[in-house]
Amino acid sequence: MLKEIVCITTLIVLVGCIINVECGRVRHYKWEVKYEFKSPDCYKKLTIAINGRSPGPSIIAQQGDTIVVELTNSLLTENVAIHWHGIRQIGTPWSDGTQGVTQCPILPGETFVYKFVVDRAGTYLYHAHYGMQREAGLYGSIRVSLPDGEEEPYKYDYDRSIILTDWYHKSTYEQATGLSSIPFVWVGEPQSILIQGRGKFDCNTPAGIQSGLCNATNPECNPYSLTVIPGKTYRLRIGSLTALSALSFQIQGHNMTVVEADGHNVQPFQVKNLFIYSGETYSVLIHADQDPSTNYWLSAKVVSRNSTTPDGLAILNYYPNGKYPPNSSPPPVGPQWNDVSPRISQSLAIKALPGYIHPPPETSDRVILMLNTQNRINGYVRWSVNNVSFTLPHTPYLIAFKQKLLWHHAFDQTPPPDGYDPNHDIYTVAKNVNATSSNAVYRLEFNSTVDVILQNSNTMNPNNSETHPWHLHGHDFWVMGYGLGKFNQSSDPKKYNYVNPIMKNTVAVHPYGWTALRFRADNPGTWAFHCHIESHFYMGMGIVFEQGVDRVGNLPKSIMGCGNTRG
Amino acid sequence: MLKEIVCITTLIVLVGCIINVECGRVRHYKWEVKYEFKSPDCYKKLTIAINGRSPGPSIIAQQGDTIVVELTNSLLTENVAIHWHGIRQIGTPWSDGTQGVTQCPILPGETFVYKFVVDRAGTYLYHAHYGMQREAGLYGSIRVSLPDGEEEPYKYDYDRSIILTDWYHKSTYEQATGLSSIPFVWVGEPQSILIQGRGKFDCNTPAGIQSGLCNATNPECNPYSLTVIPGKTYRLRIGSLTALSALSFQIQGHNMTVVEADGHNVQPFQVKNLFIYSGETYSVLIHADQDPSTNYWLSAKVVSRNSTTPDGLAILNYYPNGKYPPNSSPPPVGPQWNDVSPRISQSLAIKALPGYIHPPPETSDRVILMLNTQNRINGYVRWSVNNVSFTLPHTPYLIAFKQKLLWHHAFDQTPPPDGYDPNHDIYTVAKNVNATSSNAVYRLEFNSTVDVILQNSNTMNPNNSETHPWHLHGHDFWVMGYGLGKFNQSSDPKKYNYVNPIMKNTVAVHPYGWTALRFRADNPGTWAFHCHIESHFYMGMGIVFEQGVDRVGNLPKSIMGCGNTRG
Repeated sequence: MLKEIVCITTLIVLVGCIINVECGRVRHYKWEVKYEFKSPDCYKKLTIAINGRSPGPSIIAQQGDTIVVELTNSLLTENVAIHWHGIRQIGTPWSDGTQGVTQCPILPGETFVYKFVVDRAGTYLYHAHYGMQREAGLYGSIRVSLPDGEEEPYKYDYDRSIILTDWYHKSTYEQATGLSSIPFVWVGEPQSILIQGRGKFDCNTPAGIQSGLCNATNPECNPYSLTVIPGKTYRLRIGSLTALSALSFQIQGHNMTVVEADGHNVQPFQVKNLFIYSGETYSVLIHADQDPSTNYWLSAKVVSRNSTTPDGLAILNYYPNGKYPPNSSPPPVGPQWNDVSPRISQSLAIKALPGYIHPPPETSDRVILMLNTQNRINGYVRWSVNNVSFTLPHTPYLIAFKQKLLWHHAFDQTPPPDGYDPNHDIYTVAKNVNATSSNAVYRLEFNSTVDVILQNSNTMNPNNSETHPWHLHGHDFWVMGYGLGKFNQSSDPKKYNYVNPIMKNTVAVHPYGWTALRFRADNPGTWAFHCHIESHFYMGMGIVFEQGVDRVGNLPKSIMGCGNTRG
Repeated sequence: MLKEIVCITTLIVLVGCIINVECGRVRHYKWEVKYEFKSPDCYKKLTIAINGRSPGPSIIAQQGDTIVVELTNSLLTENVAIHWHGIRQIGTPWSDGTQGVTQCPILPGETFVYKFVVDRAGTYLYHAHYGMQREAGLYGSIRVSLPDGEEEPYKYDYDRSIILTDWYHKSTYEQATGLSSIPFVWVGEPQSILIQGRGKFDCNTPAGIQSGLCNATNPECNPYSLTVIPGKTYRLRIGSLTALSALSFQIQGHNMTVVEADGHNVQPFQVKNLFIYSGETYSVLIHADQDPSTNYWLSAKVVSRNSTTPDGLAILNYYPNGKYPPNSSPPPVGPQWNDVSPRISQSLAIKALPGYIHPPPETSDRVILMLNTQNRINGYVRWSVNNVSFTLPHTPYLIAFKQKLLWHHAFDQTPPPDGYDPNHDIYTVAKNVNATSSNAVYRLEFNSTVDVILQNSNTMNPNNSETHPWHLHGHDFWVMGYGLGKFNQSSDPKKYNYVNPIMKNTVAVHPYGWTALRFRADNPGTWAFHCHIESHFYMGMGIVFEQGVDRVGNLPKSIMGCGNTRG
């Protein structure tokens, strides 16, 4: 009876909630966001914590549950907003937590209530979506299990989650100020890779000694330890929320079987090392079938950049051993940093599991080519899509579109381009003489099918092209294909995978390559689509899609208070 | 004709503007607040700058002018608010810039317009009044000259302004997080004293060398140089906006004649060294009558704390000498740090100049005793008035009082106490077992006369009492008297100065002493009254007075958007 009342309440409150949603529980969280001194890699630094923790508390729920997070901002002068990464927010676009897109930021001292349904089992994340607060430590994991009586198409005994991040000793203010300075000041490579919020900076380096802030014996930087019982099978959910780094993750002496990507079941395949990009999640199965008298290394290494960052290390602890580090050295973590081919191979290996395939629409209504370039605009280094570098408006799009009076004053009205100069050479440093900044949006016809072709190119450095993980809010997309070189509009679509394309919310575009996505514009709202490297989005590498905002329910007043909605 | 139009506009726009105001010009400023890397003392650090400068641009105006500051917040995730220190904001209480008291903070990306009349000649300041942003570099000076045809009661050839500050290398976030941590973490003494935004940290210290951030030859940290023409007289306007330090300011080989304090003419007196507390301004006259073949030191030294901070140094440069440092050492800057008596003597010496005396009301309608103590509340170190430690509400008081619906939900309704336990021993570490935190306000009858007796006491350290400079917004007060020890309510008021008390907006309460103020509650609005040491106010050392808000004109929407005024 109680469950039914909750269910009815949920359905009433969540206007637009899909009808066939499992009627779940309401899970209530009270979180306080606050600066705290933390030593995640033994080096003491200000960290944005939730209830004193970074990573923050895990959300563990069941498909159909309603999550209510009552978030109090206890930062002194700084606003905040939290995005629920991978949750589509069907019927609750105002809870997407994307500052400037779906809400005004939450002011210091204020409490904001995020309320949404987790409508599909899988592995998800949450993190700050404001300024560069994510890499200051404001993130955590969301684990959604199947409804009672349903089973995964693979077996495991225990379920564990870890998040991989990279960690800087400079504050996000220093980093952001450098990025928006003339001359451009780059923060450099991260000091550490953290596995579930723990890493190890070498306190005996000159930087460690001279800082007076490094303490190698601080228990806060004891390595993360994953304890396993010999003979058992573990589902390890791995998410990456790196600020910058693409990673290769490996478990010494153990293969991993990939079974889930971004909440979708994958046709299982085995890997020695898993490549993972910021914003992605994977589930892998691990069998604790090795010599149980010793422990093993979990390790994460930067790829795609010639990084100075030491590998992140954690411990696979065979019960009942102590949580001591293995005696042996960790193995080299997969291929060389600049060896792209195994990464492309992994991308191509990820297919939907038969029985769990969502067939993509056979045709699309609109094709948007998105050329990724690095530009200089008014002397500032920026990233652009089709020569337009994205900026956020002061009035969030969702409010501007819903309240039509605000519309024309809230953002640039010239639509951004659906393509780029066909003569553009992706292998040379682009001149981009006509690059501009804009907060214009792509407006999509509701329920139409849209193809996006992400086209990579050369950065401003000769012979350099970076990997960009693109993340779409509010949707999963089908990954229709990957390719190297310049996308050919007549021949390449013929190679699209219509058979078993995986659905994801984050996908990489590889150096000098292209990635083709397809999605249905079936979720009323305004949704960011952007490179998940935090500094790249800050420097303009993103766009916003609008679709069917006239179908969105009444907006909560709590998302307002900024721009044209002030006072 | 144009001037008249402006004047009429001004009178219409500034509802409540006093009738006999001089009809002045409108002075328009466009300011952008932004983080920049600065090296004010040779050590590179993130600084909050206005239009690239710290101190920010000076406001130079004439009595009766209307100041319009169009302030754009270009901080990334951080709000801002600016207070116009010493400007009473008659008729424009919403322009006082006190976050939480008179306005919601200004969000990143937003532009807020401050508009107010500078209705009295004198030396004033502006600075951030949000979090601890003032000590991050967000401050500047306001110089208001007499109307055409009016003259100061003293002669000088040139008019110059400097601001004294202390400077930390740790960020304000690190400082504030330490202050609100258990255990309490104190940032320690400032690294430098800045004179007009320039100081000198010794880059050859281990801290300087190891940081890699210190460059002794950076021109940004060339000492400030005040060039004087031999034989001329200079009016030097000196303001202090230190975060913590009480200072003794001296000019090598030159006496100073004090002629103005906080915008009021002082019966002139000569000093070798001027004691100045955070929030105070003084004008001194200097005669450039020394040997012109050399330069002289300006120096500022910390008093009232046993500080490790080196003296701040600048150059009095006799034209046409180069701006080189004098060969001689600077002289010791006045008395020892713990010698309180000359500081009390200076306080007592400051009297209103005959002809410029505003006689105080002979009686007061209400006497509020304010015991200053350091307390521990729920494990946190706090400062309190009458055992109540101040916190800011989420809905600014001005809006809450004006919009009566909000009133009861906006802040604690229990009025704070007008006194304290008469048996309290000010010479011992107080137990303060019943100390609480509150955002309650003192409501004053409009046009009533109020006495405030600031009573100092022992801190939480035995045999220690600090100096607190208290600043009142929206008013000048008469300084009725000072005393050592505990204020005696029957005998001490008989010693009040009714003859020529100076009016000020900031005044010190000396260690173990008391200071008695009187003011008329004749300015409709809500006004902060607080210790001007930035960390002390942050830790609760302040209160708010409400008076006659029903007489305040319509509030601009732009001050809203937070707390109960969101959305």
